[in-house]
Amino acid sequence: LTQVPRQEGRQLALPVPPPAGMAGEAGAGGKRAEGVSGSGLPILRVVGQLQATYIIAEGPDGMYLVDQHAAHERILYERFLAEQARAQVTSQPLLEPLPVDLDPGSASLIEEHQALLASLGFDIVLFGRETVLVRAVPAMMADADVAQMVHDLVAELEAGEEPLAREIGERIARRVCKRAAVKAGKVLSPAEMESLLRQLEQCTAPRTCPHGRPTVLVLSAEQLAREFGRTS
Amino acid sequence: LTQVPRQEGRQLALPVPPPAGMAGEAGAGGKRAEGVSGSGLPILRVVGQLQATYIIAEGPDGMYLVDQHAAHERILYERFLAEQARAQVTSQPLLEPLPVDLDPGSASLIEEHQALLASLGFDIVLFGRETVLVRAVPAMMADADVAQMVHDLVAELEAGEEPLAREIGERIARRVCKRAAVKAGKVLSPAEMESLLRQLEQCTAPRTCPHGRPTVLVLSAEQLAREFGRTS
Repeated sequence: LTQVPRQEGRQLALPVPPPAGMAGEAGAGGKRAEGVSGSGLPILRVVGQLQATYIIAEGPDGMYLVDQHAAHERILYERFLAEQARAQVTSQPLLEPLPVDLDPGSASLIEEHQALLASLGFDIVLFGRETVLVRAVPAMMADADVAQMVHDLVAELEAGEEPLAREIGERIARRVCKRAAVKAGKVLSPAEMESLLRQLEQCTAPRTCPHGRPTVLVLSAEQLAREFGRTS
Repeated sequence: LTQVPRQEGRQLALPVPPPAGMAGEAGAGGKRAEGVSGSGLPILRVVGQLQATYIIAEGPDGMYLVDQHAAHERILYERFLAEQARAQVTSQPLLEPLPVDLDPGSASLIEEHQALLASLGFDIVLFGRETVLVRAVPAMMADADVAQMVHDLVAELEAGEEPLAREIGERIARRVCKRAAVKAGKVLSPAEMESLLRQLEQCTAPRTCPHGRPTVLVLSAEQLAREFGRTS
């Protein structure tokens, strides 16, 4: 990126420490902050997209910068867990079952946790010692890289030492939602931005992604006025 | 403005001290910083308008927030002084000369400085003891409130104790450009925003208004990535 000298201008410096209570979902589980009043978003108006990565929006109290990837992760994650909780994860059969090669231990791990994976919308069966056959994936992940998702599942199953099914389900959900979420660098249409904001507004904890990073930065009208030396 | 609690989200805090060297034109005269390399703006792409007050734009190095009023003041001011320096201020005759009531001292002050005012594009003559008749104004101020401009002129003429003609000319220019500049609160079309940015880019000192306030705030791509916890 070109660096433009700014001797004369004013640069917004952004100190790192977040306001108290921001920790939110950063920790494992992350149920603590969910549903806390005040976590919601106001209705936002799309202004435009910046660097094909952030959605700029206007709220009643100032400017909202939304990280499109983090926001989409949050949306998918909440939808996924809600479907799972209602035992209604919509599964999408693949047109052709996809074989994925794994090492033997990993393949048997998939076999062991078939019930859990089924509850998440995956239908994966052993196909020889070192191969699994993916027959269906969660519908909302249908566009993601299936082989990569299987490797994600294995990684999460291997990481957990006798984890609770719910915990590992959430961990898997975080991983696969990350894979399925729209990437930074993708140009979005106004309609796509609109849709993403509307869905984010509906989230229980819209202000952080499932990994605890912020989805939204706010620049209040007062801060802007102060920085610009406006006296109104 | 509605205050949305932000316990969970992240608010951009903006410390007040500007980077070194920002003083720029804040002082009288303000010639020091003009023409300093590095004061220019890159080519900016309009993203949209915020609060009918700020233009949000994208530059090669991040997000630019432009105060539409301050930016327009800067544009008008530089154009005005350039025209004056070339003795080419375009004057716009009023369809009907406008009488403006002043107290007797103020009216004679206008009379005294007629040459200076003429060099700025004003044609104002005495019309009785307490009234002046405005026959022409600078063309670029044609849309502004004429009576208000005359009161501005008087205020500047009264404030100066034997000022240099050039200094008082600049002070008058600052005042009348403030009156003529587009106000905060005015919704701009994309074409108007585009035009304003193109003209601001051409300015010698585009980053401050003639009174020394910032016209532009920059949020760099690196800062944004850091705030959002992006690791790329």
